[in-house]
Amino acid sequence: MTFDEARAQFPVLDAKAYLNAGTNGPLARATIEAVNAQNARDLVDGRSGKAYIEEMLELREQVRAGIAGVIGVEPPSLALTDSTTRGCAAVLAGLGLSDGDEVVTTDQEHFGLTGPLHATGARVVVVEADEEAIAHAVTPRTKLVATSHILWTTGRRLDVARVREDTGVPILVDGAQSSGAVRVDVGPVDFYTVSAQKWLCGPEATGALYVADPERLRVTSPSYLSQDAYEASGAFVPKEGAKRFDSGWIPSTSVRGLLAALGTRPEWCYDRAAETAARCREQLEGVVEVVTPPGHSTLVSFRPNGDPAELVAALDDRGVVVRELPGRNLVRASVGWWTSDGDLQRLRAGLA
Amino acid sequence: MTFDEARAQFPVLDAKAYLNAGTNGPLARATIEAVNAQNARDLVDGRSGKAYIEEMLELREQVRAGIAGVIGVEPPSLALTDSTTRGCAAVLAGLGLSDGDEVVTTDQEHFGLTGPLHATGARVVVVEADEEAIAHAVTPRTKLVATSHILWTTGRRLDVARVREDTGVPILVDGAQSSGAVRVDVGPVDFYTVSAQKWLCGPEATGALYVADPERLRVTSPSYLSQDAYEASGAFVPKEGAKRFDSGWIPSTSVRGLLAALGTRPEWCYDRAAETAARCREQLEGVVEVVTPPGHSTLVSFRPNGDPAELVAALDDRGVVVRELPGRNLVRASVGWWTSDGDLQRLRAGLA
Repeated sequence: MTFDEARAQFPVLDAKAYLNAGTNGPLARATIEAVNAQNARDLVDGRSGKAYIEEMLELREQVRAGIAGVIGVEPPSLALTDSTTRGCAAVLAGLGLSDGDEVVTTDQEHFGLTGPLHATGARVVVVEADEEAIAHAVTPRTKLVATSHILWTTGRRLDVARVREDTGVPILVDGAQSSGAVRVDVGPVDFYTVSAQKWLCGPEATGALYVADPERLRVTSPSYLSQDAYEASGAFVPKEGAKRFDSGWIPSTSVRGLLAALGTRPEWCYDRAAETAARCREQLEGVVEVVTPPGHSTLVSFRPNGDPAELVAALDDRGVVVRELPGRNLVRASVGWWTSDGDLQRLRAGLA
Repeated sequence: MTFDEARAQFPVLDAKAYLNAGTNGPLARATIEAVNAQNARDLVDGRSGKAYIEEMLELREQVRAGIAGVIGVEPPSLALTDSTTRGCAAVLAGLGLSDGDEVVTTDQEHFGLTGPLHATGARVVVVEADEEAIAHAVTPRTKLVATSHILWTTGRRLDVARVREDTGVPILVDGAQSSGAVRVDVGPVDFYTVSAQKWLCGPEATGALYVADPERLRVTSPSYLSQDAYEASGAFVPKEGAKRFDSGWIPSTSVRGLLAALGTRPEWCYDRAAETAARCREQLEGVVEVVTPPGHSTLVSFRPNGDPAELVAALDDRGVVVRELPGRNLVRASVGWWTSDGDLQRLRAGLA
């Protein structure tokens, strides 16, 4: 697949320099065609019956295998969720953290991670988003390190494998800005989340959670899909592997759409995205203060010369879609494997 | 709206006697048109930007008001969830139940309620699905009664208000088979769930949770939408009212589809569904053993003469869609306000 062919899959790119996959990725024509086809079927055939349910369960396994492939893990260690937030909550509740425990996180995390972290009641130790600062904050009471792989704010990438190895403490990694954007090797990481609506360009409310050792994490929010058998009391035999953490039914249309979206990704997606992100950085340096370190991610965050919200609105008027990072005086451009040099030029022109 | 007009909204009814809204309701043409229109927009315009997010948040409030109207509660006491399972889990975790506590439930509950119940670690006391049996099982250690309003198995309706009043114990009601099917008055009930993909004919993975007193329930699985402001530690100011229990982002297409689905309901929906369900009972009695008591619900469950799974498959071959209730030797027909006498005749003919 050539770049032009790959890019042509996304109608939004015809008119816009859409640089916001960090919120929601562009949708491919094939993705919406798959959704529409399933909708048309459901409308006429209804949404039930043994064959229907079995087909959807089989398609779920294809999704599981597809996402597992993206982050380089085995399908049995991957749960299907509807968000990174849900994945984080499943891990935090499953670990049974409580008042006497400590968790270490960074000052650059999304509420989808820190909200559930706070809700555990554990003492949340917030440090600078830096491998050494994290390791330094770990004490004998630390039950978990919880951090993003790529920070949604500055686009900095943390060496989460190194943090895991240096601290010896279980680590929960928010992979919202890394899964599908950069080559991921989960390595010694214990828990890793995927947000499929972002860099995988899937339907909203789709995602996954990698659990290295599913047997050692309690299932605290079981869905019907978590169990192989159950008693009237709710006592249940959990499914083999990470399926027990599947967070619920995925709409038939979302399963179809996500499978189609996974099929749009060219082999060269990571190399191309990294190269384009590097060019984006180069083009913006000198115009604005770029805060994303080189080579870290497909995000390019920068401190604008004026008001960030006004800039984002002005760019939007010119068909250039980026986002503000509220309270941080930053604007963020998301560069995908579908991003063209023309998109970058439009961004630069809008800033100049 | 006449019955013929109301029924004509659902293409699946043209060819099938679709009697399985207890799993997933039939989809209206308007619902899928709304979904398709949003998909077409998202494909070309992308899924981000201030105006986009604000529009979706506003549409959420319309959904909240619409579902609140269905169960006769005020919108600020309703959280938007993706399932009854999620609603139950939010309540159970929020109550902070633990080992020393007791919860009373019935032997006719769905795993979506009992699974999360078991996961709390509390002692689950399982009794016959009967108001007096429940009240009798309550002890000073009972922290919660958890039961369906209408049992998904037998279709029996429990007087949950009476249980609440007789026991004086907080009650969590699984409203999956009642919300949208029968007129609901939550009365003194503390927590009440809605599954919008069933009797409200909405998109999959949509639902709601009524919380009588949101301030008194902890938020244990916050989503980004739960908060008005937050700190780096995840400490947050919860949103006013039950919004704090909103379980996450609802896809733009699902919001649109659900709003359209809510618009398909005629004023006479409850009366018509009750009458048709009564006729269904009458027609089946004498042919099979009907277990649903008269006047209880829009479900008609019966003990077939032969193997339930074989019967369901044979009916399906004739375009009559009902479901088996595994392990209970029961088959269940779901009768909606859209069900015709012709549908009932086809069911009866298939059983004879």
